[in-house]
Amino acid sequence: MASGHSVTIESDAGKTAGFLDSAYEEAGASIAKDAAGTVQGADIVFKVRGPEEGEIATLPDGAALIALMEPFAMDPKVIAGLNAKKIAALSMEFTPRITRAQSMDALSSQSNLSGYRAVIEGAQIYGRAMPMMMTAAGTVAPAKVFVMGAGVAGLQAIATARRLGGVVTATDVRPAAKEQVASLGAKFIAVEDDEFKAAETAGGYAKQMSAEYQAKQAELTASHIAKQDIVVTTALIPGRAAPVLITEEMVKSMKPGSVIVDMAVAQGGNCPLSAPDEIVDVGGVKVAGFSNLPARLPADSSSLYSKNLLAFLPLVTAEDSSLNLDTDDEVVTAMLLTRGGETVNERIQS
Amino acid sequence: MASGHSVTIESDAGKTAGFLDSAYEEAGASIAKDAAGTVQGADIVFKVRGPEEGEIATLPDGAALIALMEPFAMDPKVIAGLNAKKIAALSMEFTPRITRAQSMDALSSQSNLSGYRAVIEGAQIYGRAMPMMMTAAGTVAPAKVFVMGAGVAGLQAIATARRLGGVVTATDVRPAAKEQVASLGAKFIAVEDDEFKAAETAGGYAKQMSAEYQAKQAELTASHIAKQDIVVTTALIPGRAAPVLITEEMVKSMKPGSVIVDMAVAQGGNCPLSAPDEIVDVGGVKVAGFSNLPARLPADSSSLYSKNLLAFLPLVTAEDSSLNLDTDDEVVTAMLLTRGGETVNERIQS
Repeated sequence: MASGHSVTIESDAGKTAGFLDSAYEEAGASIAKDAAGTVQGADIVFKVRGPEEGEIATLPDGAALIALMEPFAMDPKVIAGLNAKKIAALSMEFTPRITRAQSMDALSSQSNLSGYRAVIEGAQIYGRAMPMMMTAAGTVAPAKVFVMGAGVAGLQAIATARRLGGVVTATDVRPAAKEQVASLGAKFIAVEDDEFKAAETAGGYAKQMSAEYQAKQAELTASHIAKQDIVVTTALIPGRAAPVLITEEMVKSMKPGSVIVDMAVAQGGNCPLSAPDEIVDVGGVKVAGFSNLPARLPADSSSLYSKNLLAFLPLVTAEDSSLNLDTDDEVVTAMLLTRGGETVNERIQS
Repeated sequence: MASGHSVTIESDAGKTAGFLDSAYEEAGASIAKDAAGTVQGADIVFKVRGPEEGEIATLPDGAALIALMEPFAMDPKVIAGLNAKKIAALSMEFTPRITRAQSMDALSSQSNLSGYRAVIEGAQIYGRAMPMMMTAAGTVAPAKVFVMGAGVAGLQAIATARRLGGVVTATDVRPAAKEQVASLGAKFIAVEDDEFKAAETAGGYAKQMSAEYQAKQAELTASHIAKQDIVVTTALIPGRAAPVLITEEMVKSMKPGSVIVDMAVAQGGNCPLSAPDEIVDVGGVKVAGFSNLPARLPADSSSLYSKNLLAFLPLVTAEDSSLNLDTDDEVVTAMLLTRGGETVNERIQS
């Protein structure tokens, strides 16, 4: 390859995304017929998900493994297995939120796509058109869309709902989000007390708010939710269960035909009635949970994820293309979970 | 009711659209437990679809029946049954395309919704995002969308694909469509020869083009289609099978992951590979056929259809609200299929 590496891909790995083996071969990669053959002799193994326990035996001793490891949900047997083989496992979820690492940030690239897709799914489930339509037979009112959580996913959900002509409101626990929401043409809905003003953390993630604040916010949003046609929830707290934003009572306050898209369903959900990859009908309100929205845009999610990996590659290789973890680099140390037989990341040691 | 009529609705008729029996009762309607009870004693029967043969016995003698009768596909036994009961059957599909009848035009109101929905379905099937996205990990290219046929459905498909950020082109056999397509921000693709220029008919529908023109147009569109990500076909010819616009060869020229939405599948399809309510995978190209797109927006399609019917009501009732077909009115005569035991519409007599 142009960067001096030799690359092996598992056969049909890109098929779902529309990338055929022949395309990889044309780009200079070798095709292996199975996962074990793909990783054989590799210095660096890139994966989407972390390994299953049974896969670890096939990894070469001392290799680097770079993947979305789901670091807060790792099986201790997998960690032990990685350490037994002295694997240097790097978790893409731990890419620090610093400017230099933006191009490597897979959570951002995938959240962006997820936010778009959540609104497309919502529009598909919703039994009306999203935009206002002025027709000879009368006017179709625009959909009222409420986006809860205005991080990367929420902002893209807002932008997409606005594109489709929805009347969009949004909420977030971070005051900085108010300006971002407004810049996309949506109205911000939040209890703006002192705690709210103090809540923005340096890392850009939301910290968990107090029970008191959550109660006040729930009261404000409850009356707002009752009037919405589509609600998209995006609230995640790293390493914890997703916060409940929409109670059963709030769901039941909505009009029949309304739609809730719970983007946090894989982390327990922002709505207790959502279920992974199901559309639950609650008195005519459709509660939809998608556990893996990027997989519903396989071509783009694969492309952006591979660009994230490619941007990260120089931090784990020397100029002669050999494996060389730069453990002085704060990006590498933030992402490194295990190395030389030891668990080296305090975020998963506890 | 405000207009002096008494109205009976079949129980749960609006359930799919999110309209409950209680809402109809609050509006002053009676609820009947089945179809036979609903039409009992009625002067005027409004339906969505024309009757099955077995339903005709329940209709009161001499009543007016107003529905989307599918006049070109009617079972002769149904026509005979309607005549035996001296039913005045009026076909909403035959609403003339004149200004005064626009508010009654159900084909237009439903085509508009279908055009929107076709693009939402296309976006859902497409494994990439529609808009250009400039992200830290790189730029996602916008989807190239080609809309074939720029009638009411095609224009709304163009508008929706543009809303979603697609790069949109469109084609039509009518030269007037070129300006309409451009006004929505899409580029017009057509062989603009003399036949094309002569093809616009007074009624606003497309007449069937010559085989020679179709061959030239197919050649131009074939090279264009090969480069598209999403193609939406909307070409219908009243009373005939839909024209083939996308051959098997053209489908196979498209990139894996591309999507075709065939809106004409219920009339035989604009693509011979499409099948009703299926997504056919042709070497990675997804060919989707939706036989009833308005049913996928049940709330809006019901609302607009009922507004179409309401606008038509004065033409079949006297001032005292009794049944009174105004057979001097060109709208009524255009729509009337059977009356007093005779088939009176020459468009279905042949």
